[in-house]
Amino acid sequence: MPTENNDLPSSAEVLSAAQNIAGLVHRTPLIRSRQLDERTGASLHFKCEHLQKVGAFKARGAGNALRLLPPDTAMVATHSSGNHGAALAWAAVERGLACTVVMPETAPVAKRAAVASYGAEIVLCGPTLRDRETALQKVVGEKGAHVVPPFDDRRIIAGQGTVALEILQQCREEGFTPDIVVAPVGGGGLLAGIGLALAALAPDAIVLGAEPAGADDAQRSLRGGIHITEQHPDTIADGLRTTLGRRNYAVIRRTVRDIVTVSEGAIVDALELLWTRTKQLVEPSAAVSLAAVLEHGARFRDKRVVAVLTGGNMDLGRVSDLLGKRGGGERS
Amino acid sequence: MPTENNDLPSSAEVLSAAQNIAGLVHRTPLIRSRQLDERTGASLHFKCEHLQKVGAFKARGAGNALRLLPPDTAMVATHSSGNHGAALAWAAVERGLACTVVMPETAPVAKRAAVASYGAEIVLCGPTLRDRETALQKVVGEKGAHVVPPFDDRRIIAGQGTVALEILQQCREEGFTPDIVVAPVGGGGLLAGIGLALAALAPDAIVLGAEPAGADDAQRSLRGGIHITEQHPDTIADGLRTTLGRRNYAVIRRTVRDIVTVSEGAIVDALELLWTRTKQLVEPSAAVSLAAVLEHGARFRDKRVVAVLTGGNMDLGRVSDLLGKRGGGERS
Repeated sequence: MPTENNDLPSSAEVLSAAQNIAGLVHRTPLIRSRQLDERTGASLHFKCEHLQKVGAFKARGAGNALRLLPPDTAMVATHSSGNHGAALAWAAVERGLACTVVMPETAPVAKRAAVASYGAEIVLCGPTLRDRETALQKVVGEKGAHVVPPFDDRRIIAGQGTVALEILQQCREEGFTPDIVVAPVGGGGLLAGIGLALAALAPDAIVLGAEPAGADDAQRSLRGGIHITEQHPDTIADGLRTTLGRRNYAVIRRTVRDIVTVSEGAIVDALELLWTRTKQLVEPSAAVSLAAVLEHGARFRDKRVVAVLTGGNMDLGRVSDLLGKRGGGERS
Repeated sequence: MPTENNDLPSSAEVLSAAQNIAGLVHRTPLIRSRQLDERTGASLHFKCEHLQKVGAFKARGAGNALRLLPPDTAMVATHSSGNHGAALAWAAVERGLACTVVMPETAPVAKRAAVASYGAEIVLCGPTLRDRETALQKVVGEKGAHVVPPFDDRRIIAGQGTVALEILQQCREEGFTPDIVVAPVGGGGLLAGIGLALAALAPDAIVLGAEPAGADDAQRSLRGGIHITEQHPDTIADGLRTTLGRRNYAVIRRTVRDIVTVSEGAIVDALELLWTRTKQLVEPSAAVSLAAVLEHGARFRDKRVVAVLTGGNMDLGRVSDLLGKRGGGERS
């Protein structure tokens, strides 16, 4: 466990985050599918964070951050392509604070609508990280908002890690310990948090990150040992286009066994399987966990696997487009 | 409770059906949505039969029927536009029997694929009830199959009614009794079964049927007091295009308070709300329960309502088409 660097979150902070957000977030179910077990040869348990408040695990980190704000904070702000923005807007309502979210104009309509539904102010910007940061600095300069970053933040990492505490508890209730916990990685808040939690509480469980081959900075960073901070993402998994944060990279390289990449085809296959077999409307980024099991079968076969379904916010108008990418002519 | 007519199922048969199918079917969850409660002013509990075996409540009736077959039955057959066919095919596998399903060529691809996936033989026919019955009689004549009808059958009605026993048990566990149970009505197997169960076990609960205005034979039959057996359905709710069965009509008029109709627009609104708010991929027919609450708000306001989500089998390629029917230009 990384404790020697005071700038990084500790496993203990995950435990204390769980107390901070108790009662604020849902304990989401862990579901199974016999058909998907038969298909993959693994014993799969899906952690349903698409059923979390605001439809994504991001409610955990945002909820924790807003319990740990500096005194006298009146307003918070962030930049986000979607779920973190909605989560912060939601958490701000819970705490009675004003909130501004900087969003790229390319963000899914459903995610913009979610942010707006919590009454946050939306500031639109260009698609690059630089565009976002410039717009956010402007908000901070003009309004004095306290910034809650989407992933490179110890409060956020610790908050996201609470999902792993729940997973361990639920596995224990069902009488097993997981062999592998696999989660999508974009900025790395979730994966770092899970890594921290399991390093302390279930060190024998293997933590794997999964990312689109079209946004594989995490794998390249981890395998090469150099933190890569630029990439040109090309993936339908809109939540995973960001590069790893600095703290996230530092935690992940100590606590996560490996990062696997998945093709766009596997993501679409996984999405369709989740929609049709589990009837859960997850978003493309969430399907990356199952895509990893589909595309790296040998690593998962005969293992007790927990795959995190990270969120369920997407433009439904994209469903047919996404299925079209499979190229199957079967559907009417 | 109707017990004077030996041709009709009794409440006791629902209780015994529950024993017949114990261990064979899932106890599906009862879920909530704060957003939908706020939107409707009701306290809504959704019974998730789209998470049932074969993705629909039909597994209950088929499972019960196959426990009550005449001795020496080697083969079963039915006609079905979808979920009953899949349910019978599935139950036949569980019992080691052969199964043939007569399906209209217009049945959704997903429903045909489901039947085929259980190894049943599919015989395609024209779209009318007469086409189906003619094709089914041919199968019976040629193969000596035992027919398990989709709804007008006391074993089926009793089996579908087991969902109401679970609902009552789950409500009790959560510390309340439902004021209203609302379920979609097509052939009436589910609604009659719920009516029977609640008449015996929760006579103060109001049972309401909900059907598309474009397939309103049940309302007209119930309100006019004459069983209507012909209609020209026009609705996206493909599971509800059939007319009420004879036994179903007889049971429903004694046990169900009223049938309400819903517009196609309300069905699409309800579908979109269920998909986006609960993240549950239900089929159009299932959304008719929530559509009733949306369109007949005054009947449900401030009530503890259980709405049955009947199934989750649909061609995903239709998602965008269905949303297009809302006429909203908001989606990308």
